[in-house]
Amino acid sequence: MSRVEGPFVVNPTLFAENRLRLVNALKGKAKTGSVIVLKGGDEQNRYNTDAMDLPFRQESYFFWTFGVHESGFFGAVDVDSGKSVLFPPRLHPDYAIWDGKIHPESWFKDVYEVDEVHFNDPDTINETLRNLGAKQLLLLRAENTDSGNVLEPADFKGKNEFPFDTEMLYPIMGNLRVFKSDKELEVMRYSCKVASEAHKAAMKAVKPGLYEYQLESIFRHVSYYDGGCRHLAFTCIAASGINCATLHYGHENAPNNERIMNGDLCLLDMGCECECYASDVTTTFPSSGKFSEKQKVIYNAVLQANREVIKAAKPGVRWTEMHLLAERVLLTHLKAAGILKGDVEEMLNARIGAIFMPHGLGHLLGLDVHDCGGYLGDALPRPKEPGLKSLRTTRTLQERMVITVEPGCYFIDVLLNAALADPVKKKYFNAKRLKEFKGFGGVRIEDDIVIWAKGNEILNDVPRTVEEIEAFMRK
Amino acid sequence: MSRVEGPFVVNPTLFAENRLRLVNALKGKAKTGSVIVLKGGDEQNRYNTDAMDLPFRQESYFFWTFGVHESGFFGAVDVDSGKSVLFPPRLHPDYAIWDGKIHPESWFKDVYEVDEVHFNDPDTINETLRNLGAKQLLLLRAENTDSGNVLEPADFKGKNEFPFDTEMLYPIMGNLRVFKSDKELEVMRYSCKVASEAHKAAMKAVKPGLYEYQLESIFRHVSYYDGGCRHLAFTCIAASGINCATLHYGHENAPNNERIMNGDLCLLDMGCECECYASDVTTTFPSSGKFSEKQKVIYNAVLQANREVIKAAKPGVRWTEMHLLAERVLLTHLKAAGILKGDVEEMLNARIGAIFMPHGLGHLLGLDVHDCGGYLGDALPRPKEPGLKSLRTTRTLQERMVITVEPGCYFIDVLLNAALADPVKKKYFNAKRLKEFKGFGGVRIEDDIVIWAKGNEILNDVPRTVEEIEAFMRK
Repeated sequence: MSRVEGPFVVNPTLFAENRLRLVNALKGKAKTGSVIVLKGGDEQNRYNTDAMDLPFRQESYFFWTFGVHESGFFGAVDVDSGKSVLFPPRLHPDYAIWDGKIHPESWFKDVYEVDEVHFNDPDTINETLRNLGAKQLLLLRAENTDSGNVLEPADFKGKNEFPFDTEMLYPIMGNLRVFKSDKELEVMRYSCKVASEAHKAAMKAVKPGLYEYQLESIFRHVSYYDGGCRHLAFTCIAASGINCATLHYGHENAPNNERIMNGDLCLLDMGCECECYASDVTTTFPSSGKFSEKQKVIYNAVLQANREVIKAAKPGVRWTEMHLLAERVLLTHLKAAGILKGDVEEMLNARIGAIFMPHGLGHLLGLDVHDCGGYLGDALPRPKEPGLKSLRTTRTLQERMVITVEPGCYFIDVLLNAALADPVKKKYFNAKRLKEFKGFGGVRIEDDIVIWAKGNEILNDVPRTVEEIEAFMRK
Repeated sequence: MSRVEGPFVVNPTLFAENRLRLVNALKGKAKTGSVIVLKGGDEQNRYNTDAMDLPFRQESYFFWTFGVHESGFFGAVDVDSGKSVLFPPRLHPDYAIWDGKIHPESWFKDVYEVDEVHFNDPDTINETLRNLGAKQLLLLRAENTDSGNVLEPADFKGKNEFPFDTEMLYPIMGNLRVFKSDKELEVMRYSCKVASEAHKAAMKAVKPGLYEYQLESIFRHVSYYDGGCRHLAFTCIAASGINCATLHYGHENAPNNERIMNGDLCLLDMGCECECYASDVTTTFPSSGKFSEKQKVIYNAVLQANREVIKAAKPGVRWTEMHLLAERVLLTHLKAAGILKGDVEEMLNARIGAIFMPHGLGHLLGLDVHDCGGYLGDALPRPKEPGLKSLRTTRTLQERMVITVEPGCYFIDVLLNAALADPVKKKYFNAKRLKEFKGFGGVRIEDDIVIWAKGNEILNDVPRTVEEIEAFMRK
């Protein structure tokens, strides 16, 4: 990447547009006199201490609406007029000694381009709401469909003066976040560009003998030093060899701390955040710079699944179908490789694909790496079948959705052993040939795409074919 | 730093020793049949999502006792017998697909070298406590004296079968954590060595035109890539120019995002963690590689304060006195530089020192960067006077305490303006000379030392004198 000139700076009009979209979406639904009130995140330290290793990161719904990186804020939007108000915390005068300049209300108004700013003194919010003529408050209660965790509605002094609704906002805001504006896409293109350069740096630096976490460190450094991205979008997965078959490797019990051996594949699933917008890219490549024949077989199966999905993922196509398409390509390759036998459609119904790819094909991407809204809109209920039940969305695709396409193929002992012990499933396996892949690990190839009618846009740019990767690593 | 051979691996006997110290300290105080029960930390994601940028980090008291990095654990220690028990969470079988190998109880017993391991099924803990013959539980309720936040006592099914005490444990454990064993010091030496190399890399790389965060990124990369330290001990402060006068620069409202100018001083206050043990080092150096005359004046004042304290900080000396010693050296230098005038002891009493150094001289260091125990033992109540009230400890020093020595001298407009408007304080100032330092920023020099009767041990190793720094940066 050409060295960037300082951190990417987002224009506050991005958030003004979001607020406008929100107000328009509420027109006709919300009663006259409705005012949205949101609460930003608060700083949290480790346990009972006064420190933390990374700084505060704003809550995503609040950031989408106001673009504020600072902690302790409230914000309001009047649905009728579109008027926006921010309530920054009233800072203690000692802040000027320890933390920096104390800005006046006008400073925040200029920086965030909102209509009003009032420091949050005990009665500020309810007084402001009264002045706006609020007859009903719209508060956000958002249950995350991946974690099941709930973001609780804003709470503040005087809230009970007003009737409030906690149901209307979530499906509307959650759904708006799914469709990225031009300005949002601009940030996401940058975020993915940074992640691509950071992945390429890791791919270039790998050699047998390094520890997995050294590739994570390279990713983090390039993202931050060159790209200005201080936060990661999620904990880095930097796996090698058999660890590539552990889908969420990299957490505290498996902290990317093994040595990379000659002949290993490396699977790096890593993404950074720019202005809270996530990237999420996976590369798989050989530590030696040269794929073995067996590695090529699996890699090309996954790559074709990835390519076929990107080609077929058009507006109106249901994501569940794309998952099945990816499985179909994988199963066809595994049959050609002699690992599986029998009819591919039969295997699909027997859920053989989920043995090799237990995770979903991909997920919406935005201010959260597993972005909200996957089960809003025309989504079908979460499926029950293996593999499909891991889908983070079942919606039909539409323009401006950003989604990851990340088929994978893994050799996971516990799943393969169960399949071989299952009278229905075992008939599809050539156990002898399968044995040759024991300890293989796995391959995942993940791109971040924008759905467009004219053909999808791939936001990241990394070497992808066997030939491209080998040539890049040789250079 | 010579490239290390993989991450530093701590021996579980470190924690067995800690448990022995704890049990011995409780002998004669705890009733017969007392059993300590502690709860480790739980994973926490961002808000309602299922992701986070850095992985789980264990709670420090739990880590001190058991050395467990994983989340969701409970642990117990029988005071009479010293017997130790760990209760890992019972993992869902799907863990083997997503997160890695599911280990048996015996694996945890071998890795953590405890006497018993039982997966935490609904009645495991109370049954185990009954089998141990528990007559009273000792639970940890720890109020942090810096943040005021409370670590709540362990809660688990069947706890109410037993009488429990939440008062006895905290002062004893908090105080034991203050005194580092040989094995703990070995880890801290490593952590400080890594931080030193990472600071030196940033010092070497600086040039006007870089952004402050690029120095942070270098620190993080060297700590992790070369040192295997995945976590930071606290958010990096990477300040330049006037930002050096913002004591806790680097947080989300001031995110190390300014450009470093020629002629600026850079102030880097950064530390990493190895096996949860913190380092905390501050270097100050000129972006150009050459100190100006004015920069030398302030730098040498701070350096002498640092050196005098390290010489004088002996067992039996109260830390409050060391703070005043540092102020005395600073005031003497500022007087010699013509910024202040009058009698130094008088200025000390008028708290003029606190205008230039509003923070405390240093803090205990260990599993937390601002380690616990600062107001235990023979500590005096927190002082009320400016500067002194920021002390994180008022104890007398004793061998095996690890403490930071971090005098600083800053030109903070809000404090200087108040002093010049104060009839008592203004007489000590030469306003004309002071004006020459407007916008200067500040200097801080921070070493991590172990208190020993034979003379203190400095754990970090970075260029410190003006000559050393200029020579190092020239190389």
